[in-house]
Order: sequence, then C-alpha cells, then structure tokens
Amino acid sequence: MFDLLLKGSVVLPDRIIEDGWVAVRGERIGAIGTGEAPQATKMIDAGTDWIIPGIVDGQTHATSYKGLPGFEATSQSALAGGITTMVDMPYDNPDPLNTLERFDAKVQAVHDYSHCDVALYGTVAPGQGTDLMQPLADRGICAFKLSLIESHPVRFPRIPADEILDILTASVPTGLPVGLHNEDQEIVRAMIERHKAQGLTRPEHNETSRPEVAELSATAQFMELGAATGAHVHIVHLSSPRGLQMIAEYAARGVRATGELCVHYLHFDAARDIERLGARMKVSPPIRSGMIEDLWQACEDGLPALISSDHSSWPIDNKLAASIFDAGAGIPGLETLGPSFYTDAAERYGEEGAVRRLVDYMCLKPAEFFGLAPRKGAIAAGADADLVVLKRGPKPFDASQTRDGLNWSPYDGETFTASVATTVRRGEIAWDGAQILSTAGSGAFIPRN
Amino acid sequence: MFDLLLKGSVVLPDRIIEDGWVAVRGERIGAIGTGEAPQATKMIDAGTDWIIPGIVDGQTHATSYKGLPGFEATSQSALAGGITTMVDMPYDNPDPLNTLERFDAKVQAVHDYSHCDVALYGTVAPGQGTDLMQPLADRGICAFKLSLIESHPVRFPRIPADEILDILTASVPTGLPVGLHNEDQEIVRAMIERHKAQGLTRPEHNETSRPEVAELSATAQFMELGAATGAHVHIVHLSSPRGLQMIAEYAARGVRATGELCVHYLHFDAARDIERLGARMKVSPPIRSGMIEDLWQACEDGLPALISSDHSSWPIDNKLAASIFDAGAGIPGLETLGPSFYTDAAERYGEEGAVRRLVDYMCLKPAEFFGLAPRKGAIAAGADADLVVLKRGPKPFDASQTRDGLNWSPYDGETFTASVATTVRRGEIAWDGAQILSTAGSGAFIPRN
Amino acid sequence: MFDLLLKGSVVLPDRIIEDGWVAVRGERIGAIGTGEAPQATKMIDAGTDWIIPGIVDGQTHATSYKGLPGFEATSQSALAGGITTMVDMPYDNPDPLNTLERFDAKVQAVHDYSHCDVALYGTVAPGQGTDLMQPLADRGICAFKLSLIESHPVRFPRIPADEILDILTASVPTGLPVGLHNEDQEIVRAMIERHKAQGLTRPEHNETSRPEVAELSATAQFMELGAATGAHVHIVHLSSPRGLQMIAEYAARGVRATGELCVHYLHFDAARDIERLGARMKVSPPIRSGMIEDLWQACEDGLPALISSDHSSWPIDNKLAASIFDAGAGIPGLETLGPSFYTDAAERYGEEGAVRRLVDYMCLKPAEFFGLAPRKGAIAAGADADLVVLKRGPKPFDASQTRDGLNWSPYDGETFTASVATTVRRGEIAWDGAQILSTAGSGAFIPRN
Amino acid sequence: MFDLLLKGSVVLPDRIIEDGWVAVRGERIGAIGTGEAPQATKMIDAGTDWIIPGIVDGQTHATSYKGLPGFEATSQSALAGGITTMVDMPYDNPDPLNTLERFDAKVQAVHDYSHCDVALYGTVAPGQGTDLMQPLADRGICAFKLSLIESHPVRFPRIPADEILDILTASVPTGLPVGLHNEDQEIVRAMIERHKAQGLTRPEHNETSRPEVAELSATAQFMELGAATGAHVHIVHLSSPRGLQMIAEYAARGVRATGELCVHYLHFDAARDIERLGARMKVSPPIRSGMIEDLWQACEDGLPALISSDHSSWPIDNKLAASIFDAGAGIPGLETLGPSFYTDAAERYGEEGAVRRLVDYMCLKPAEFFGLAPRKGAIAAGADADLVVLKRGPKPFDASQTRDGLNWSPYDGETFTASVATTVRRGEIAWDGAQILSTAGSGAFIPRN
Repeated sequence: MFDLLLKGSVVLPDRIIEDGWVAVRGERIGAIGTGEAPQATKMIDAGTDWIIPGIVDGQTHATSYKGLPGFEATSQSALAGGITTMVDMPYDNPDPLNTLERFDAKVQAVHDYSHCDVALYGTVAPGQGTDLMQPLADRGICAFKLSLIESHPVRFPRIPADEILDILTASVPTGLPVGLHNEDQEIVRAMIERHKAQGLTRPEHNETSRPEVAELSATAQFMELGAATGAHVHIVHLSSPRGLQMIAEYAARGVRATGELCVHYLHFDAARDIERLGARMKVSPPIRSGMIEDLWQACEDGLPALISSDHSSWPIDNKLAASIFDAGAGIPGLETLGPSFYTDAAERYGEEGAVRRLVDYMCLKPAEFFGLAPRKGAIAAGADADLVVLKRGPKPFDASQTRDGLNWSPYDGETFTASVATTVRRGEIAWDGAQILSTAGSGAFIPRN
Repeated sequence: MFDLLLKGSVVLPDRIIEDGWVAVRGERIGAIGTGEAPQATKMIDAGTDWIIPGIVDGQTHATSYKGLPGFEATSQSALAGGITTMVDMPYDNPDPLNTLERFDAKVQAVHDYSHCDVALYGTVAPGQGTDLMQPLADRGICAFKLSLIESHPVRFPRIPADEILDILTASVPTGLPVGLHNEDQEIVRAMIERHKAQGLTRPEHNETSRPEVAELSATAQFMELGAATGAHVHIVHLSSPRGLQMIAEYAARGVRATGELCVHYLHFDAARDIERLGARMKVSPPIRSGMIEDLWQACEDGLPALISSDHSSWPIDNKLAASIFDAGAGIPGLETLGPSFYTDAAERYGEEGAVRRLVDYMCLKPAEFFGLAPRKGAIAAGADADLVVLKRGPKPFDASQTRDGLNWSPYDGETFTASVATTVRRGEIAWDGAQILSTAGSGAFIPRN
Repeated sequence: MFDLLLKGSVVLPDRIIEDGWVAVRGERIGAIGTGEAPQATKMIDAGTDWIIPGIVDGQTHATSYKGLPGFEATSQSALAGGITTMVDMPYDNPDPLNTLERFDAKVQAVHDYSHCDVALYGTVAPGQGTDLMQPLADRGICAFKLSLIESHPVRFPRIPADEILDILTASVPTGLPVGLHNEDQEIVRAMIERHKAQGLTRPEHNETSRPEVAELSATAQFMELGAATGAHVHIVHLSSPRGLQMIAEYAARGVRATGELCVHYLHFDAARDIERLGARMKVSPPIRSGMIEDLWQACEDGLPALISSDHSSWPIDNKLAASIFDAGAGIPGLETLGPSFYTDAAERYGEEGAVRRLVDYMCLKPAEFFGLAPRKGAIAAGADADLVVLKRGPKPFDASQTRDGLNWSPYDGETFTASVATTVRRGEIAWDGAQILSTAGSGAFIPRN
Repeated sequence: MFDLLLKGSVVLPDRIIEDGWVAVRGERIGAIGTGEAPQATKMIDAGTDWIIPGIVDGQTHATSYKGLPGFEATSQSALAGGITTMVDMPYDNPDPLNTLERFDAKVQAVHDYSHCDVALYGTVAPGQGTDLMQPLADRGICAFKLSLIESHPVRFPRIPADEILDILTASVPTGLPVGLHNEDQEIVRAMIERHKAQGLTRPEHNETSRPEVAELSATAQFMELGAATGAHVHIVHLSSPRGLQMIAEYAARGVRATGELCVHYLHFDAARDIERLGARMKVSPPIRSGMIEDLWQACEDGLPALISSDHSSWPIDNKLAASIFDAGAGIPGLETLGPSFYTDAAERYGEEGAVRRLVDYMCLKPAEFFGLAPRKGAIAAGADADLVVLKRGPKPFDASQTRDGLNWSPYDGETFTASVATTVRRGEIAWDGAQILSTAGSGAFIPRN
C-alpha cells in the first residue's frame, strides 16, 4: 500500500513510459511501473499528460527584495511553476550570504518560510578573504557566486581580479563551481554614461549600453583565471551563442568551464519586443536582438550546462522609471520557466521533443550540476518524490494570478501550450493547479552531496 | 501479484538502486522499485549482486559451422553468458542470408532451435544486385554485412568497390547500417604468401601477416564510400585505436560512421599471449601487441559504438594445424563476453565502474544501434524482462563446462571477478547458474523497429 | 661585361622590381639590379613586361607517344610556352622508365633531342621489386610514379596495394616523393561497363563514369599506406577540392602528404564546356562540373603543392572516336600552361597578383618539390639563367601554330592576356616569340639534388 | 661605377649566395650578384662572413629616459648592434607621443640626433579621445601602443577597457596595429603589495609577483576587444608559450591577432639566472623559469610576428634598489639583440640556420609588420642600402664598451658566436666594428607606407 500514486506518461531519464505510473511511499519514490498499478491512499490520474520530475531552478533571487521572509511568496510561486527546488543566489537583502551566521539564518528562513526545497549559493565579500569558503562548503552550499560588475556596493559588489584568483584557488579543494556575473564594469559604466550624456535613455538603449563584448571580455578573463587555478568556472548567464562557444573551447582544452542559459534569452528578442515590453524585459546581461535561433542551436549542441529562470523579486514599481538606466534589472520567472521553454521547444521539436529537453536542461542537468542528484532531478526509485503533472494543451498566462507577490511578467498575456496541473514535493501534493496546499516551512534545505 | 520478482542492486540506465527490485508480469517488466517489494509468484533475491539487463551481443556467428541447427547449442551458451539477444551474422553454413527464403529459413530456425532471442544481419552476394535489400529490411533484419577480403568464396566473399558503392546507395532508404570486415585483400594475401614462402608460419606470424595498415586502408576506403553515398558505414571490428580515431574524424565531418570493438582486443596482447595460446587466439583482424591500454582509453573517450564477442562456433580441431595460416580464425566467446569485460574494467574503474560500463557498451548501446530498443537493452518498465544476476566474486572459468558444444576457449583457466548466476529471458528463468531451464525454440526473432 | 641583359619588371621570389634588370654570364645569372644596368653583349628590353623565371612544368608526357625522340617537338613547345624544365613522367613508349638502362637511354635522348631541360620520374613495374629504386634515385630521378588503375598493361599498369606498400617503404631512404594516379580501378571499370551497356557513350558520360568517389577512395587508401610507412605520398592530379582538403588533413597529422593540381581543372567546366569540346577535354581524372571556384580558393589556401600541365602528346586522331570511352585521355598543354593560368588569375587578382601566383605555383614550388632548387625556379644570382619575358596584353591562341607536332588544343581560339615573348634557357635565347632558336640536344638532364 | 660594394655570403630572403656581392648606388642597393663584381668607389670584402639586411628592431625606448636627445646615444648603439631602423615606442620623457606636435618634435629630434633610421609608434592618453589617431597615421606612425597596467601616470598609463574599445574601433580605418602591454593591473598590484607586506622583496619575487595568469587574462581580454572591433590587436611581449598559442587560436578564427617576442625571453631563465643577475634582468612581463625551450619551439612553429629588443635606456642606478619592486624594469639590448639570438639559434640549428632565422624574425618580418617594406628588411635591388656584415666567430661581449651611454647589460661577459663588423645605413658606412662613422641627424624618419 503506497501513499500516493500518479498515472500518466512518465518521463524517465532515458525514455517515456506512455502507460506509466509512479508510486510514492513517504517522501520518496517507491516504484515505477507500467500496466496494472499498485494500490495507494491517494491517486492522481494524469491520463496522457506528462509526469516529470520537479524542476530544479538553478538560479533564483528569492530573498533579494523582501529579505529572508521573501521565501514565503517566492516558494509558492515556484511550486505553481513546477519547481520543487530553487538554487538561490546569495545576494540577500540586506546582506549577502558570505558568513556562517548568514548561512544559518538563511537555512532557518527556509525552514520557517519556504514551501519548496532550497539549495544555496554562497559568496565572498571584497576583502573578506577565503577562510570561510571551506566551512560554507562543509555546511552544504552548492556553489559560489561572484561578479565583475558592481550592481550594489554591499550585496552585489565587483570582486577585483586578484581576489577572484584567490577565491578560485580556494574553491578547488571544495570542489564547488564558482559562478560569475560576466560583464566588464569599465565598459558598461562608460557606455551608460555616454548614453546618458547623449540623452539616449529609452529602453532600447539598454542593449546598446551593455554590448556583447562587455560579456565576452569578462568571460575570457574569467576563463583564464580558471585555467590558471584549476577551478570550476561557471558563467551564470550568457546572452549570446559566442559566449557558450568560448566556454566549449576552454572546456575542450581541459579547463573546468561551464555556462548557463536563462530561459528568457530563448524567448525574447530585443529588436522585436522592446517597444512592447520596455523595462519589463530589462535583465543583465541584456536580452539582445537576433540571438534566439542560434541559442536554440547551442542547446541542440549541448553547450549550456543548464537552463534557469534568474527569477528576481522586484515589484513593478522598480521598473517604472523615466530612464531605462534607472529601472531595475531582473524579472519574475518561476511560473513561466517550464511552460515558456516547453512552448518554444514544442514548436521546434514537437511535444515529446519538448518534454525531453525540458527534463534534460531543467531537471537532470541542474540536479547533477549542483550536487543534488540522485535525490533530485529524476524520476527514479529511491529518489525524492518531487513530481509534476505537466498538462498538455493551450493555457493563457495571466500574471495577475501569479503567487510570487509581484503579479507582473513580461510573459503576461501569452498562451503556453502546457501548464503545471499538480506539483508533488517530497510526497506531498503542494499545488493542485489552483491552490497551494503546502504550509510555510514545509520546504527543506538541500545540501550539496 | 507479479509473476517474478528480482531483488538486488539494480543497474538502471542512469543510476544504480542499491536496495532495488524488478517485478515481472508475463514477458515484460511491470515495475521497478526500492524498499518494500510487491508480491510475486517467484522471487530471486540477489542480495548485493548486480541485476543488469540481458546482454545484447552485437556480433555472433551461431550458424556458420553447424548450419541453422547451430542455434541450439550456441543460444544455450549465450544464456549461460547472460546474453539474451544475439545479433547474428549472415555467413551461415552452407549459404549466407542474402535472400528472403534464407531469411525465412533462419527465422524458422530461431523458432525451432534457439533458447535466446535473435536479431539478424543480412548480406548481398557479389553480382547479386541490391533489389532484395529493402525487402530484407522490411522483414526486420537490423543491418547488412560486407567484406573487403574473401574468407570463403560463397559465404564470406570479397565485394568489389563498385558493388559496395551500389549497396551503400541502396542502404540509405532502409536506414540500416552496413557493416564491413575491414581488411585489404591484396595486402593480406600477399603478406601471407610471403610469410609462407619464407617458412614463417608460427602463430606469431598471424599478426605480422595482417598488418594494421591493411585494416586502416580498407577502413579509409570504406569511409570515403560512405561519405559519397550518405550511408551509415560501420566497421564491425577494429583491432587498434587508430581505426577508432579515424572513424571519429569522419563522423566529426558529418559522415554516418561508426566502429565496433570486440572484447578480446581489450583482453589479449599478442606479444604477451601468443606463445601460450597459439592459434587459440587467432581472430581476424588479429589481436595485436601493445594495444590494450589505448583501446580502453578509446572506450573512455566513447569511440566504439558497442562491444561484442564475435563468437565463432569452430571446434578446436579447426585450430590444430601445423601452419597458423591453416588454422581457422575465430573463437568462442559467449560465456566470457560479460565476465571478461567486467573483470578487466573492475581493475581499472572498480566494480561499480565496471558494471556501468558493461551495461553501457553491451546492453544500452547495441540495443539502440540495432534498433532493438526500447524492448531490449535496459531495465525499464514496459521493456522485455531480460534480466541477469551478475554475481560478484571470483570464479575460475572452465571451458570444458561451456554449453556451446565446443568446450575450448582462450580464456580457459582464467579467474573472472563476476559470474552469471541467473538469466531471465522475457520473464522466463532460462539459466540458474548451473542448468539451462528453457526449451529449444523459446527464443524469438527480434525485428529492427 | 655580361653576355646577356634583360630589362623589365623582374619578378623575384619576394618582390617585383619595376625598373629591373637581370644580367647573365654564361649559363647563370650573374647579377640582378635596378636603375643603371651593366654592359652586356646582348640586351633585351622588355619595358614594363614581366621577366619571370623559366617555368618548371611538374608533369609532362613528352615521350609517351613517339617514344624517346618525342622530346624534340615537345621540348620546343615547352620553350614556346616559357617552360625551361619539364619533369617528365616515366610512361614512355614502348617501355616505362623502371631500369637503369632505360634511365640511361632517356638521359641520352634528352641530350640528343631536347631543347629544354628535363627532370625525370621513375617507376616500378608490377612484380619488379624495389631493388632499383635507390640506384635510380642515386642517378638523379626526382620522384616515383604509380597508379591504382591500369591504362596500359605495360606502360601504365595498376600496382597492387601490397606492392605499393613495399615501394613506399623502399622510397623512405631515397627521400623521394611517390606520386599516384588516384582512381579506383574497380569503380571506374565497372562504371564504364555500365555506361556502355546502357549506350551512354557521349562525351558527358566520361564525367559520370569516373565519379569523384573513385578518386577520393583511392586517395584515402594511398594516404593510409603513406601514414603506415612514413613515405612522401603525392597525388599527381586532383580534380576536386575535397581531395586537396583530405591531403591537408593527413598532412596536419604528420603524414608527408601532398597533392598537385593541373591547370585545366582551373579553366574548364564539364557542364559548360563538354558540348563544345567533347573528347578534346578528356583527361583522367575527368574535368568535373562546378569545381572551378573552389579550386581557385584551394590555391588561395595554399593547398596544392604545385600546378602542372600534364601535357600528353596525343595526336587529335586519338580523340576522334564514336564512343568517349574509346577516345584517348590527355591533352597538349605546354604552350597554354602559363598563359591560361595568368589569364584566369588576372581576372581574379589583377595582373600583379597573377604573375606572383604563376611564379609561386609554377616556378618556385615545383623546383623545390622536385629538388631542382636552387638552380631552377627563381631569378637569383647564381641560379641557372632560365628567364622568360611574359608580354602583357591580349593575344589569341591559335593551336595550329603550336610547336608540339600535334597542333590541336581545347584552348584553341581563346584569347590570353599574356604571351611568351622570349625564353632564355641557361643563358641562351631559345625562343624569340616567333622562332625556336636553340638546337636539339641543347637541353640537359637535371638531377634531383 | 657603384659607390660601394660588399662581398660575402649574402643572405637573401629565400637563399644565401655564398660567393655574392651587393652593389650600392647612393642610398639604395643597385645590384646583387655572384662571381665577378662590378667596380665601386669603396669595397668591403667580408670573405665568408654573412652579409645581412640592417636589423629592424621592432621595439625600442630610445627617448624614455633622456627625452628626445636620447636618440643620439641610442642610435649609435643601434648601429653598433647592426640595427639600421628602430621602431620607437611613444613613452617619451616627459610626454608621450599622442599629439601632432609631439610627433613633429620627435621627427625633428630624429633629424637632429639620430644616427639610424627610426619608425614611430604613437599612443592615446586616457580620456583623450581618438580624433588624432587618423592624423597621426596619415603622418606615418606605424602602430599605436596601449597598456592595461600603469607604470607611470602620464607616460605609461593604464587605459580603461571602454577606451581601448574606442581606440580599437578608431584604428580600423587606419589599418594600423594596436600594441598592448599585457598585464592585469589589479592582479600585479595586489601581488606586489602582498609580497611587500610579507617582506618578500628579493629579485626572485619579481617573477612570483607578476604571475603568468596576469598576462594571459589581460591578453584574452584584449583579444576579445579585438574580435569585437575587427582591429589588428598585437601583444608587444609575451613571456610564455601559452600566450603565443592563445593568439594563434584567435587568429585561426579570423581575429587579426599577433604577438611579439623579445630576445631576452629566449635567452634568460629566472630559476637559473636570477641569483647572478638580480634586478639586471628585471623586465615586464618578467623573465620566467623553464620557458626557453618551448619559446624556441614556438618560433619554429612560426607563432611570433617578430622578435625585438625592447631596449630601455635606464642607467644602472635605476636598478640599484634594496627592494626588487623599487628597481626599474627594462634593460639595454641594442648591441646584444642580433648576436644573442644568433648564438642561441646556432646552437640549435647551426650557423646557416641561425642567420636565416635572424633575418626572418628581425629583418623581414618586422619590416613587413610595420609597413617599412619594401624599403627595409631585405637585401634587394632598389631597397635601402641597409647592410650589415655579421662576422662569424666567438667574441666576448663587454658592456663597458657599448655606445648606448649606459654601459651595463645582463649579457655582460658572455661570449657570442657572431659580431657586427660593419653597418651600412642607406649606403653610408656608419659603423666599422670599432667606431661610429656617421653623424648625428644622418638618420631619417621612416613613415609607414
């Protein structure tokens, strides 16, 4: 007698079982089968809809606006988006996660507020030294994050190259990847000043003020620091195919180099969408023009390590500025991550092709990357019972109904061809397609293993 | 209530479930789980031993000696070796499989004699034309086989380059790979004549009379024919890393090129073993000296498409000749394929590394390659219940106890670190580690899908 | 006081001296200068016309029709084409150059009949063995020639792969390149038979009966034999860019691999010209359709080792056959080699670009390749005074006026944008733009150094 | 009747004429020959010694210490080192060459003080903008120079990345290369501070404080800026093979990327020489340990664009500091450039191999690179009569006898296997092996053509 049984088209790592079922015992998957199913206390029959693993969103900023209590709304939005594990960035409000105290506080906040599971990035402040890196790694953070450009002097500072070198060196014994926000500060700041001086402050000037070369030169610099130290160097978002290609070239000559894509780069095009969306699509690095098809090809070539949302918890007020340079960067993305990717992929590869790629880039790969496998990322006997029913068929996306407490989105009004009908998080039905059924604090901190 | 339950360390395509079970209903796998298991009529508890998919041996010559009744002994030997599907070569005694009549007769022989499942290669005789290739493909053969060297004028003839070109062209709409025995006839025959003329007819002269260049030039020629036609060109056995590398280079520039490794090239070394084994280790292309480590590295680099036994049903009399050039080429290999690979791999990668690689190269990859997946090659709900208990621990190999009707082997007297304790073929316990329990004709022909 | 002075635009290996002069003392160049010139017994003032080194034609068949006396007319035609050194192939009528006796006879014939200098290829007959290769190399032949297809059983036989392997092995200590006529005999012969059987015997069927794959598979086979032996393997004519690319790939991995282009592949296009020219443009390998631009690009990429004429001394009767398969292959080319290349190159790269490329591919490179430098191939103090005045300006080409004793050409009636106004061979004015002024036997055998 | 005749082993771009001569008329080479020579007013018979083109030193700092009058001593030292053209860096004392006025003043200084010919780099000051780049190019500067590290706030400042981007963009229509001093300022400065803080201030700490990664990351950053703009990006000194390799990889994907080697990196080894030489071998980037053989191999692979001296006019006082970080960087190098390279090359490649490589990397290549060919860099009729007699045979190097006004050198006391016996600069015998015979101001400014 199992506790829960899901029936449907079960998407396993290597195949899809059309007439499949997944049986849950407690928090874990007990069995996977086809045909006659065992008995269970509860049963969800998804028919021919997809049953996929809970999505592992490799990049979120849950607590960068409201601080640690921000987990409450954000984690509900995650579950509504089929995300059962968020990998949260360290740039918390008011202080980043760079000490053991802040680590402990953030883990406590997960246990107090979060509805979904959470893995954590750590960081190192300028001048801090590297002494806490190993202790943080020992407590289970899954990666470190740095930036070559300052967005905020305390939470999101620029780290000088010599300190990056130290941090990379110190990261090697931890085995953890070191992620980088890859924009050259001198280029970006000077370009913005020039734009401002010329009165070029409309939304379309965001792209021109943050040129691709600012990304590529920062990326190349970081790759060389990685090559010199043997560290795992990871670019947390690349807006163009050339960056992914560069990383592949470094990897081919033995550098532990990886790069990540965010789903909005696969969906929006600056030339096409900027007039309509304005600051609503401002992210950093910016969404560029004419990149979409080559980025999809890069995915087909296996170049990204994973695809994430880079969800930011900014209210829309943050976007309403006369100058694009005064508007905040970052967009909400938890409830659109899976459906947007699926919709765009299905146009190119059909529905089965879409769901396979979604599971690959948003479940299997991020779980492996952040050391959360074999618990997370796959439907497998013994794994955590993180399961999502992905319902096939068109559904309009209405941002006013999102659970992130923000209620706006650049995707507002689009129609996706799949929607999240059920989310099971460690055996508990946490989202039923209409309501969040879990309680705050039911989420857990998942240490890297 | 299932029909059969196996418990143990279950080796899935992407992970190993330590405390796992596989439940069988009829001929198929019904469920896979961990922890408390469902009830079943029969139960095999393998403890911590490995439960792997039945091996798909991609290259056997079951009926080249005794003719079609040869299936009877050979298929029992297969089961004793954990092989549930043989991909049998077309060079049958007395006639090769190049017509629909012979196809029908061979399928009938499977149903009359075979204990294991069988997929079939077809061939084309010199001068025959290509008209029967599509009909043979329609009936379910999984590949075509050709040779650039004549071993027997009727069964194993050399096909001229212009006819190979026609055959490759005709293969494209079938989608089937065309396998090649890759030795240049002019070079090999001339070299043998020279050796004979000089009285150099000892076993070690087999290697020198069939130099690597005879393989490589035939391989390059075939690759170019493949490049010109768009056909899938497959080399059925490469004895050296350079050939695998060449194929990778052709593949990198878009040719549908693959190459296969046989397990004996990973185990024997001519310089080390020829004095001890003599003609017992004669195969074609020959086992060379000093190749083993680079071939293992090629496997780590993912170069071979699959690894097979190239089992030949020659009695030992066939080897007892004064001159190495009069000894038959080919060795029995069904009962040593898995254990030999596992033993050698475990020395390099540990036991878990060994079993993962075995399942990859001998189950998953050949099943995909020959179009037998998703029925064959993996433990998955809905797949055929072809299951093997691979018992961990040393066991001496005694060729006199083999079930192939030949009772000799170059591996005789070696100790392997794993043995086949149970073989389940489509739900039936066909081998219990001591006895064949299945009946002749219980095997089935498996068409390419 | 010099014996001869030429003034004009002197084309040196690295630059062009606009107001230059070359002063000759005896058979050698004594000085090169600009401005005020020294005194000399004779003076030729070429104004702004080019003064280039005598062309080294890397592939001629001077004596394959008329036998050794064939040198007389052929060498006069060479001089009229600005060629001061022919590298002559060994397929003489009635016997090829594969013994010391035939070498001596051919050298004697040079001294009896030739007006231009001559370097010699040797060959090896099937079954002959390799004993004479070193003695022939010691006497000064500059390369060996083989074929994988039989055109004539005695003079132009196919060499089996095992013997090629022996020949390549024996060539290594000589240091000489081994040239190959690269067509697969089985493919070409079978294709021709099929064409004949279907009545497809018009000129355009020459191309289809000798497909590119016949070249490429023979080339790949030969490259592998070269890789195994360490020999310098040279393809004497490639009709398509892919072959040149393949050779570059082998060279990049350390094989001593080179390939040659003939000028007609850069000028004629089968699709465009076959109706007009018919058998007049039959060569082997055939001129193909749509290759010209990619072959010029291959030259820009530096892929060919040199560019030659492959001049054949067939009378036009040899071409007049009802079936293209009965027409002889080969065309006269000595008097069109330089002008044709210059004309086509000038359209692409301008006149200075044309003359630089001509000197590079037809003087410097072949002289280096065949070991004739530093005597041949460049205008340099101390080098042989082989000098050509290449007159700029249009000139119609009238094949009836050629000196080759054949008086036909596929180029007949074309207008070239440069013509050979003077040819100086080792200090002697041998051609004045209208008359041959040298005597038979004034040419010399030039050994490889 | 010529004005000057030199006889000897004349090293031409493509060959050496053993019994050669070069005849000079006025400032230019009138003729080159072999054998009987024409008459001339003066004659120098070098016997079997080498006659090479005047060396073009691609990187000197003639006026960075004494200001523009610094040309006087430096240019005499150049001539004594066989250098007839210096390509002088713009970091003059007290102001760099970044305006037309300073250009004019520097050209005037050449005409007032210099004994040798001079080509000029220009630069751009931080914040200056790019308006003067084209005018400077129009007046004939041959390249621009920038740095990513500040050595002096006015003369040798760091240029921010955004301004480098502007400068590269503006360089494209000029066609000029933009050279970079490639060290990351943040890394180097932080490392030096750490060394100082730990009291690690001995000479060997120069290497550890300027790690290879500081070079490589700056190089990669600059390459990406080049890739984005289409500019010709040139690294003016690379201390390790990896940098040269990186540049080759960028060049292979179409970036106009080049890199330069300085001769001291081919001669000194930090681990071997630092104790003996101390601050006397301090240059930036530093001479490293264990690089020499791989750098020679890089030269054999053709990776450097040219090899220069990076001559700096620092008096020895500048080196005498308690801390290595207080010692000046840079060494005198004009009189050792050619002899040191020749000596080291001759050990590896013999004397003829040495002189060919010297002429290639120090005459032909820099003259082409800086747009000084065809006047400079080669012995050719019509070229400037810049000629050097390189005397074969051992000669100890005594720094106290140098003409650079500095009279110290890290090479002091070494024995070279060639010496500069005569230097002819535009037809004038300017150095006779013992005395400077030319007058100040006899040198000329050579504009890029």
